[in-house]
Amino acid sequence: MCELLGMSANVPTDICFSFTGLMQRGGNTGPHRDGWGITFYEGKGFRTFKDPNPSCQSRIAELVQEYPIKSCAVISHIRQANRGGVNLENTHPFTRELWGRYWTFAHNGQLTGYDALDTGRFQAVGDTDSEIAFCWLLNQVEAKYPKPPQDMAEAFAFIHQCCERLRQLGVYNMLLSDGEYVLTFCTNNLHSITRRAPFGCASLIDEDVTIDFQQETTPNDVVTVIATQPLTNNEQWHKMQPGEFNVFYFGEVVYQAQA
Amino acid sequence: MCELLGMSANVPTDICFSFTGLMQRGGNTGPHRDGWGITFYEGKGFRTFKDPNPSCQSRIAELVQEYPIKSCAVISHIRQANRGGVNLENTHPFTRELWGRYWTFAHNGQLTGYDALDTGRFQAVGDTDSEIAFCWLLNQVEAKYPKPPQDMAEAFAFIHQCCERLRQLGVYNMLLSDGEYVLTFCTNNLHSITRRAPFGCASLIDEDVTIDFQQETTPNDVVTVIATQPLTNNEQWHKMQPGEFNVFYFGEVVYQAQA
Repeated sequence: MCELLGMSANVPTDICFSFTGLMQRGGNTGPHRDGWGITFYEGKGFRTFKDPNPSCQSRIAELVQEYPIKSCAVISHIRQANRGGVNLENTHPFTRELWGRYWTFAHNGQLTGYDALDTGRFQAVGDTDSEIAFCWLLNQVEAKYPKPPQDMAEAFAFIHQCCERLRQLGVYNMLLSDGEYVLTFCTNNLHSITRRAPFGCASLIDEDVTIDFQQETTPNDVVTVIATQPLTNNEQWHKMQPGEFNVFYFGEVVYQAQA
Repeated sequence: MCELLGMSANVPTDICFSFTGLMQRGGNTGPHRDGWGITFYEGKGFRTFKDPNPSCQSRIAELVQEYPIKSCAVISHIRQANRGGVNLENTHPFTRELWGRYWTFAHNGQLTGYDALDTGRFQAVGDTDSEIAFCWLLNQVEAKYPKPPQDMAEAFAFIHQCCERLRQLGVYNMLLSDGEYVLTFCTNNLHSITRRAPFGCASLIDEDVTIDFQQETTPNDVVTVIATQPLTNNEQWHKMQPGEFNVFYFGEVVYQAQA
């Protein structure tokens, strides 16, 4: 299995604190030694850092922890390989363009029967179940909406249906973003927390680090963090339900549906 | 205008030396202050580092200079904006998937009339002439070869024709790679050098750095570097001709054509 980390915020926010916790799980407090990656959006552009080496030893992971890249939408993943070799092309997140926007995807879980998924024009480059699921999902969405949909709620309902179909193939916990929306789908392993004023202190589970968000924020900031497992031990994380689908937009839930 | 840097090598080679020279042109010895980017392939996967800030001040550029990422195919670019705002989505190189491979592109020059180019399913995310030219080129190639071509020489001849069509719109110096092949097209500003045994010393033009390649290589290494302008002042660079098109494959020219 793998670990997922996502963020949706209404002001550009750095994710150094949460990322520091997650990275420890990459071969140190966790068994996820098979690579890691993180995508930060800035406007319609994005930056991805990734490495097939364990995150707790990665020079590039150090940079990401030290250098506060501020973003309103972040997708991150650390990997314990089950399907596909340990190499760069199999390292999440994966990104493809659709509707003139970059879509970025990360997956926790394991699927069977995924070879039968028709990915159409979106070809997988690596050989993970995850990338094939992502390509299939985009192909479904593009077939239904060749152009950007007028009614996003309708499109979200359709994406939710697609996620349910993938859940039938196994464990499918997902993060997906186009830089504005951050979409989540839970099979069995996803939590979220929305931080807003009054901000408090938070302590990481995986490393002896505490942060006082009051010092780092302004009163109007809204920051949602999504992770497979809670990253802090003194806050109340929301445990998502099987089949739960959420869409965050600049920190706030704008669409939610259950199985 | 911008600066381009590419590499094709038969063994994974770091590009720190050449990159150090190029980065100085990003606001120090050159006027290219509007961002930079570099893509390293590893197998079928790739890593891109980019920043809309000047390369000579960039913390991420420092990492790339210090940390020897070894690759057989590299595409890099530093930007002086002429078309499109200074932001991350307009920062080269650009990458898209075709035939289950990632294609990466960088452009030096300026085009007119590019809005009329039909990019089909490859939509530009930013608003540069370069990204639109790239999307148009991929769309042309996919329309002609929906599946990977059997005869690559024929496909290269077709890509060369497409480059000639883009040259009719202005200045089009190009680097393009799928991680194995590195394709170049010259309108007026592209040089290359192929280094092989016996290796000698090279001195950068833009910074007081000399390297003895003999110390860094084995006798079978073949490394081709392509750049808009020569990066060293004590080696013989090949000046490409207007309309010249080259394909490098692990360091060696495997296809060449003139206008």
